[in-house]
Amino acid sequence: MLLDRLKEIVGPGGWADDEETLQPHLSEWRDSYSGRTPLMVSPSSTTQVSEIVKACAAAGTAIVPQGGNTGLCGGAVPDSSNTQVLLSLAKMNRIRSVSRNDFTMEVEAGCILATIQAAAEEVDRFLPLSLAAEGSCQIGGNLSTNAGGINVLRYGTARDLVLGLEVVLADGDIWDGMRSLRKDTSGYDMKQLFIGAEGTLGVITAATLRLFPKPRNRQTAFLAVGSPSDAIDVLARMREELSDQLQAFELIPDRAIRFVCQHIPNSRRPIEKAYPWYVLLEASGGSGSDDLQDSLMSLHEDGLTQDVIIAKNEAEAMALWRLRHAISEAQKLEGASLKHDVSVPVNAIDRFIAAAEDAVSAAIPDVRVVAFGHVGDGNVHFNISQPVGWRSADFVAERDRIARIVYDAVASFGGSISAEHGIGQLKKDILCDYRSSIELGLMRTLKKALDPNGILNPGKVV
Amino acid sequence: MLLDRLKEIVGPGGWADDEETLQPHLSEWRDSYSGRTPLMVSPSSTTQVSEIVKACAAAGTAIVPQGGNTGLCGGAVPDSSNTQVLLSLAKMNRIRSVSRNDFTMEVEAGCILATIQAAAEEVDRFLPLSLAAEGSCQIGGNLSTNAGGINVLRYGTARDLVLGLEVVLADGDIWDGMRSLRKDTSGYDMKQLFIGAEGTLGVITAATLRLFPKPRNRQTAFLAVGSPSDAIDVLARMREELSDQLQAFELIPDRAIRFVCQHIPNSRRPIEKAYPWYVLLEASGGSGSDDLQDSLMSLHEDGLTQDVIIAKNEAEAMALWRLRHAISEAQKLEGASLKHDVSVPVNAIDRFIAAAEDAVSAAIPDVRVVAFGHVGDGNVHFNISQPVGWRSADFVAERDRIARIVYDAVASFGGSISAEHGIGQLKKDILCDYRSSIELGLMRTLKKALDPNGILNPGKVV
Repeated sequence: MLLDRLKEIVGPGGWADDEETLQPHLSEWRDSYSGRTPLMVSPSSTTQVSEIVKACAAAGTAIVPQGGNTGLCGGAVPDSSNTQVLLSLAKMNRIRSVSRNDFTMEVEAGCILATIQAAAEEVDRFLPLSLAAEGSCQIGGNLSTNAGGINVLRYGTARDLVLGLEVVLADGDIWDGMRSLRKDTSGYDMKQLFIGAEGTLGVITAATLRLFPKPRNRQTAFLAVGSPSDAIDVLARMREELSDQLQAFELIPDRAIRFVCQHIPNSRRPIEKAYPWYVLLEASGGSGSDDLQDSLMSLHEDGLTQDVIIAKNEAEAMALWRLRHAISEAQKLEGASLKHDVSVPVNAIDRFIAAAEDAVSAAIPDVRVVAFGHVGDGNVHFNISQPVGWRSADFVAERDRIARIVYDAVASFGGSISAEHGIGQLKKDILCDYRSSIELGLMRTLKKALDPNGILNPGKVV
Repeated sequence: MLLDRLKEIVGPGGWADDEETLQPHLSEWRDSYSGRTPLMVSPSSTTQVSEIVKACAAAGTAIVPQGGNTGLCGGAVPDSSNTQVLLSLAKMNRIRSVSRNDFTMEVEAGCILATIQAAAEEVDRFLPLSLAAEGSCQIGGNLSTNAGGINVLRYGTARDLVLGLEVVLADGDIWDGMRSLRKDTSGYDMKQLFIGAEGTLGVITAATLRLFPKPRNRQTAFLAVGSPSDAIDVLARMREELSDQLQAFELIPDRAIRFVCQHIPNSRRPIEKAYPWYVLLEASGGSGSDDLQDSLMSLHEDGLTQDVIIAKNEAEAMALWRLRHAISEAQKLEGASLKHDVSVPVNAIDRFIAAAEDAVSAAIPDVRVVAFGHVGDGNVHFNISQPVGWRSADFVAERDRIARIVYDAVASFGGSISAEHGIGQLKKDILCDYRSSIELGLMRTLKKALDPNGILNPGKVV
């Protein structure tokens, strides 16, 4: 009855219930989470989304919104009950408008991130949101998880790029908040509620995004440093000298470089001699290379860096970034690994890495920590490779115990157990141990107020 | 009974009920709003705020939080019932910590904005929030109204500067959200709720703020342009060429310059010849003056500007900013004026100014529009001076009719009836005509969920 009504709303071609079509939508690409659904609907308009939510609300049936299904925390797949309707936003993929002079664009939730980047580029503008999954993730999902990525240091997270939203609420009403205002103090800023809520408070159907001037004179450098603490000092100095020109600042341990060079074809050390830690940074704007070169020179003279290279051309820059992006793949080829996407205050990164490494090494001697990431934002991917000689399954079985140890270290520095991947199902329960009962109470109050019958993505976040 | 309990909580010196002490707290500086209170309490700790709110909640008594009382919309003064307790945050004025390497500081709500700026400066850092009232406004109020000011183009509004908050909720519970994380996707981002809520959802008692590198090589320029439309083109070109170096971009009509030169001693035209419009802009960073000079030169060659001067030193730059800041004062000396703090999309500014000027001139011929403001953010102060020869009182009597005309024009361009001053009492009722019933419904849902008994700043915003 409900299913027939849903099929009628979206029309032929707008739904699927056969296993072959459904399969890629029912589990995450890491296969950590999978579920079942009686029906996937793929509406092509906000009105259809509204009608779907109204029908489901009337029937008391749960809805799981899904974008590109590139999440890592099980936030966009249904549970195993086979009762939750899967709402794919993939067909809502129109770019509604691009305004060059206003530095804004209006996009629907199902637009692929890379498509949006290209549309901005076409009018000589820049959308700074950039992450590994950009070729298949959808902007609705990026906003629902408040995605981070490589340009947060300069441009902020996905939240900071949003000027307006269109959202279908839990009762099916459409909230049209598609404004493109840079200043607006007329009442509560409702769009903030839905960003990062992982589809549990409303379904984002469209957004007005901020665009930026295209970065010019992009420069990439690779520095050898003695410790994460030195890297933090380098970061502060570089920010002082280059200000907003500093766009990315990534910390990489030597072990990561070693894994990459060992497992990934055609990769080689940028600096022949091995140093304990490296920084990969990117700057742009200003008058370009001279500024960066001068700054790096003065850092080196002050003993903050042990060696420095600046990419001489685009190809060299890309080779440096390829190294960085290959770390996860190389680590996989090295055996099982346990991953933790966490954040701490920037100036606590060194102490956090040391404390967490000590603690996990005490629990399992010979684990191999590979802590890297967007250190300019305090975001560490604290990944741990299995000890040499262990069976993978034995190491994976330690997942919960190790996670607890890492998160305890995170908490002791006032950090977050999820920096940029969200909560989903993965961290829903453990979140309760790391946020105060008052904060969890506030979250539940919000959920209850906006989705009183609990039909929007139940079992996620709160 | 309640009042005795409140006095006991804050102790001697922590409260006042005599007219002389209360008087400056009971009306706004423009005297637009005034009210009465049986008691003003000035707690000196978050715990005291919590106890006050608990006591008031138990008694069902309303609380009006107040910072520096520099608002313009009646958001921080009690009503005339003489029943609302006034909660001054002024004594909570400690800077809890400043971290140079983390680029953050922790401040209590009652800290004066200028004090915070100075504390950042002391460690060679920069807090970009800057506005006319900075010598007396308090950060709690700035955050509660999501203040704007002169640096929004580059650094965003007050909201964008907040990493963490400490808030006393409507039941007196203290939510400790004093994190200093740049990335955090662990559940709903609760701090967003309280920023810009004008004390109606909770009482902000402290905040963790983001700091920035100090801008270097600050350059100020004054350009003559033919129209607001040309100014928008100049803005786009400058953003392309200078990127984040562009820090402020203010549009000024010739009438404003005329008023200032006529009424303010020691002021003179920066460019001797009169042009219809001017742009005052500031850039910083990069290698400084050369970049700006090159950009301005190329704009001039392309016919986008009619004349250009660059301040040769700090004194000349200050003289240009003094002109800009003197507009309100000069306009006051020219007679009564009706003011409208509004925003529209940046690329609609020219059309909005033209349409609104046409509409108000049709209603009252010979009004003198002075539309100026932070045009880089789409924020126009659409002020209107009385026609020559009118009595002030007659013009002021037109306030509501004119406001309606201006706001209708704002709405037709998808703008906001309050860009940076908030809603308070001033725009509470009229907001209902310019926001959808669905959006107003969402706001009321939120208010009801977080303050079910309506004791926090009732009668404001929603």
